[in-house]
Amino acid sequence: MKKSRTKLQMKLKLHLIKKSQTIGLAIVSLCLFSMATVAQETHVLKFDTSIADDATFAVWQALQAVNQEQLSKITFEKGIYNFYPDRAAEKYCYISNHDDALTHIAFPLNNANGLTLDGQGSTFIFHGVIIPFLIENSQHINIKNLTVDWAMSFHSEGRVVANNATQKTFDLRISPQYPYEIRDGQLYFIKEYYEHDMNQAIMYNPEKHCIAYDTDKMTPLSLQKKGSTQFHVEDIKYKYDIHHLNTLHRNQNQQFCMTAEQLEPGLVRFHNTKKQVPTVGLQLICKGSQDKNRVCPAIKCADCNDVKVNNVTIHHAGGMGFLAENCANITLDHYRVLTSQGRMVSTTADATHFVGCRGNVNLLYCDLENQLDDAMNVHGTYEKIINCLDNYSVGSQMGHFQQQGFCLAQPGDTIGLIRLSNSFFPYNKLTVKTVDFVNGHYNRIVFNEPLPDELQPGDLLENLSAYPHVTVDHCTIKHNRARGLLISTPKGATITNNYFETEMEPILMPVESSSWFESGNAADVLIRHNIFQDGTIAGKKRGVIRLVTDDNNRNIAFKNIEVSENTFNRQDAMLLEINNVDGFLFKNNVINTSTNYKPMFPNAPAIVIHASKNVKFEKNKYNGIAKTLLDVDPTMGKLKFK
Amino acid sequence: MKKSRTKLQMKLKLHLIKKSQTIGLAIVSLCLFSMATVAQETHVLKFDTSIADDATFAVWQALQAVNQEQLSKITFEKGIYNFYPDRAAEKYCYISNHDDALTHIAFPLNNANGLTLDGQGSTFIFHGVIIPFLIENSQHINIKNLTVDWAMSFHSEGRVVANNATQKTFDLRISPQYPYEIRDGQLYFIKEYYEHDMNQAIMYNPEKHCIAYDTDKMTPLSLQKKGSTQFHVEDIKYKYDIHHLNTLHRNQNQQFCMTAEQLEPGLVRFHNTKKQVPTVGLQLICKGSQDKNRVCPAIKCADCNDVKVNNVTIHHAGGMGFLAENCANITLDHYRVLTSQGRMVSTTADATHFVGCRGNVNLLYCDLENQLDDAMNVHGTYEKIINCLDNYSVGSQMGHFQQQGFCLAQPGDTIGLIRLSNSFFPYNKLTVKTVDFVNGHYNRIVFNEPLPDELQPGDLLENLSAYPHVTVDHCTIKHNRARGLLISTPKGATITNNYFETEMEPILMPVESSSWFESGNAADVLIRHNIFQDGTIAGKKRGVIRLVTDDNNRNIAFKNIEVSENTFNRQDAMLLEINNVDGFLFKNNVINTSTNYKPMFPNAPAIVIHASKNVKFEKNKYNGIAKTLLDVDPTMGKLKFK
Repeated sequence: MKKSRTKLQMKLKLHLIKKSQTIGLAIVSLCLFSMATVAQETHVLKFDTSIADDATFAVWQALQAVNQEQLSKITFEKGIYNFYPDRAAEKYCYISNHDDALTHIAFPLNNANGLTLDGQGSTFIFHGVIIPFLIENSQHINIKNLTVDWAMSFHSEGRVVANNATQKTFDLRISPQYPYEIRDGQLYFIKEYYEHDMNQAIMYNPEKHCIAYDTDKMTPLSLQKKGSTQFHVEDIKYKYDIHHLNTLHRNQNQQFCMTAEQLEPGLVRFHNTKKQVPTVGLQLICKGSQDKNRVCPAIKCADCNDVKVNNVTIHHAGGMGFLAENCANITLDHYRVLTSQGRMVSTTADATHFVGCRGNVNLLYCDLENQLDDAMNVHGTYEKIINCLDNYSVGSQMGHFQQQGFCLAQPGDTIGLIRLSNSFFPYNKLTVKTVDFVNGHYNRIVFNEPLPDELQPGDLLENLSAYPHVTVDHCTIKHNRARGLLISTPKGATITNNYFETEMEPILMPVESSSWFESGNAADVLIRHNIFQDGTIAGKKRGVIRLVTDDNNRNIAFKNIEVSENTFNRQDAMLLEINNVDGFLFKNNVINTSTNYKPMFPNAPAIVIHASKNVKFEKNKYNGIAKTLLDVDPTMGKLKFK
Repeated sequence: MKKSRTKLQMKLKLHLIKKSQTIGLAIVSLCLFSMATVAQETHVLKFDTSIADDATFAVWQALQAVNQEQLSKITFEKGIYNFYPDRAAEKYCYISNHDDALTHIAFPLNNANGLTLDGQGSTFIFHGVIIPFLIENSQHINIKNLTVDWAMSFHSEGRVVANNATQKTFDLRISPQYPYEIRDGQLYFIKEYYEHDMNQAIMYNPEKHCIAYDTDKMTPLSLQKKGSTQFHVEDIKYKYDIHHLNTLHRNQNQQFCMTAEQLEPGLVRFHNTKKQVPTVGLQLICKGSQDKNRVCPAIKCADCNDVKVNNVTIHHAGGMGFLAENCANITLDHYRVLTSQGRMVSTTADATHFVGCRGNVNLLYCDLENQLDDAMNVHGTYEKIINCLDNYSVGSQMGHFQQQGFCLAQPGDTIGLIRLSNSFFPYNKLTVKTVDFVNGHYNRIVFNEPLPDELQPGDLLENLSAYPHVTVDHCTIKHNRARGLLISTPKGATITNNYFETEMEPILMPVESSSWFESGNAADVLIRHNIFQDGTIAGKKRGVIRLVTDDNNRNIAFKNIEVSENTFNRQDAMLLEINNVDGFLFKNNVINTSTNYKPMFPNAPAIVIHASKNVKFEKNKYNGIAKTLLDVDPTMGKLKFK
């Protein structure tokens, strides 16, 4: 026994060094007792490749042994390190825009202050359901020089090798990289510690390594249909509104209609497709049901200030690449989301996502490619007032099941009271005394001021203090599903010198209040010197830059938007959708025709303008395919494209 | 708006009274601010029936507003109160012998000291997945005079109205009390906030209101079989042992074989049964898959001292009635687990369960009936040593997936090091410095003493400090599935004046190390003045009182057991199974023949004795059916039944 214990101590070797000492001189084996003697010092943790087989417990033990507030640096000798859930920290995590779950965490960082984590060029390989970096309540954090990947992906891929439009079948060739089983007629891809079904599928073009043209005709696959037999289920009356998309309710009164049949090992025929059968030669990508497939963002920061991520590559994540909740001042510089291991797909959700953030959010020199959702999404959260509890407090509820557990505000924040049917802007404002967590769906919010008389249940709460200024500069955004930039902030955005080539619209600025309840609008936006290549190729009739609301009214939502000196290489007619804007300048832009794809909506107007004012066009060059340039809401008077 | 707010305040009305004042004089509306002014007082919370529609948020808000350490009493005006999860506290709960889950809690009590909760005869009706009472880190707690029930049960029932042994079908008549749906050929019972499938089924005899004779021939139903198609799944190699019974793995490589077909609303035919088709006239009970059906014990206490439950009736729970983890000194007096609403079943798991408890555990004048598992289960937990981390600490792992998150010991506790192949008793002992939670499956345990040289990974850890003395007196235990008393404690047990009528053995004292890893043995046990009626009716060949181990060796596990002055009204031959005992006295007992059931194993010996010593029989009267009275291990020499 002694022998194996000594071996383990060797494997756990890491270096604990006072900052004032020369690195490498003082080598201390990890030990709770020896750590305690230097608790008031500034610490450096150095890990070497002796722990590469499974670095998880060594990292856990080292982080346990130090006061994280005093930890200034964590370094890894350059190498490939594996991380497993088996001996990782565990915590139930509410994760915005993800599925909340009991999950494991490789780097549980909390209350750190002034910490640099330097991978020194290392690659971290994760296995199963484990969040690489969960950073909470911390300040001045710098993560750099590392690469994140998973041994097995949270999505799966297969090549369409045959189809039969009459029989409504198609055949998929699946490589041993994506093990599967068929049970009860359904195909499940089996992973380490995880599995998923054929839900949330999309087609990729393997030659172009991007989303397939017109995939919306083929995907998603419509695995299920209504129509199971029910007996007295309708007698079950809920006292309160329930979330019909949660795991319990989304599958009730549904049954599978598409079935899978293995023709030979690695070759599976799918029967009873509802949409157009997938085209032979395309790569089918799927990641399973929406309520189960977002479990592991690569980096999540919550309640952190001044976070920098430099020279970090995320090859994969079972969710988003970088997610910040209620943080201030975040810069991602040379942050890259890129595929690996021959996969078509990088992360299975957004490359970056910012909710309730403030200060400055910057993406600089980033490559955000092949992820299965937006390159960047910046927004707040609308919560609905359910009831008034007394003269100073309300009960509020999250709108989307994947936002449960989110904390709307900090004490002192200004909350806008919104009734979207009247205005996108608040009819009144209150400041927060406390937000008291009751459960993931329901909070008590206590204000410093009495509730105004006009307040009604159903009105929305918006945290006006929690929006950032956004800068996106010198980034490449391409080959992903969904949007490029989805930005909802009234604090301004500077979008310059970027390259966009996305499946949906490259830039969307919405007021979104019907599905995800992602709050915010847009003001003081500069979009300059960008190249927009193709875009909107999957089947939706959309422009390249869109300012839209979910509410069909004439109220102003967006202000002071400038789009200038950009190049649009556009394969389709639609270019701009401008709704509910006061102040839109489109100047010095060049619109060329791209022949990379056949236009889907050649007869659409290039520019649609509705319920807006102070819209100007100056010195643009239009060489696109649209026959009609401007489609302007008649109440707005005459407008000219110049 | 003002109007509805006032109404709400009325609904939330509860009374906050300084203990010195006459109850009813000082009526204070619940309010965070006014509460703050009396935070140093001893508090009484009085709830009245104005909150009966949904008492959850009023209770939450009141408990939030007080310092629970200062709370001496909570009372409810007699009435029927509803509790819903929607506005209840929420917490991820590790619950021993249950499924860990994010759950809601109606009464989240923590750090209370000297609290009496008096229902004054009220009934609390729960809706969905919500734990009524979760009491943690508290002392001197008294819960009394209340009844717990659920609006919809976590199990379901249906009457067998036809069967066809040739076709392997049976038909179930289901009442609107148990709404269902059939999807993908499977029947799911649908509840408020919950559903379950046909797993874990058992037959009840509706006339006798107890488990059906010989149900083991018919149930469980074998819903699934092996044999789905797999492709390269075997290539997935896990670095560490995985729990094959967890939700992910238990369903892989399985598919449904039994199918459901609705013949008419409320009448469902099941095809392809594997066992004997269920007998017409019996009531089929099912509660769904083992990994999902234990989510809501009625009362859970953890890390509490001196808990009393008086005059409390539990009609139902989605799990156990009363569960104590790591508690000391618990008395259940006139605690009742009884059916309601015409159901065959009360709680879906044990009526009472005690793990890692110490001091005295007393069941006095309890009625424990119709629950779907043991009336009482008392045990510790074996954890397996996975690896040695340094000279003082080990990594340890829980053996069963439903024990994850359990904390083995407190600082100062004595831990036995066990190698069951050598002895049931420790080969060495250590005392605990800390138990550090890494994750639900894996802990770091640091000892005050260096690890002994003979320690090996695979050895078990047993907390020798965490066993109670058990008293069960004047209790009625009947009509439940499984055992009566399952007691594993070396600190002694007194079992007197009880009535037993159970499906499996009335009293089991095991060393259990192969499935649930429930530790403990038995010593100084007195079983006197009890009536054992029938028992072991479901199909298993078992005695009435059993002392058994999972390990087939001759080591002594149990010491000093006296069984005297009991009446056995026994329908079958087997009476006692005595293994690995040193000191067993069977005296002044009367064994009669019951004709309530046909004997299943009439040729079995009455008493089987193996690997035991100092066994004595004195002054018993045997009028049972066994042809052979004693079957004694030949190495033990001659023994006579007297």
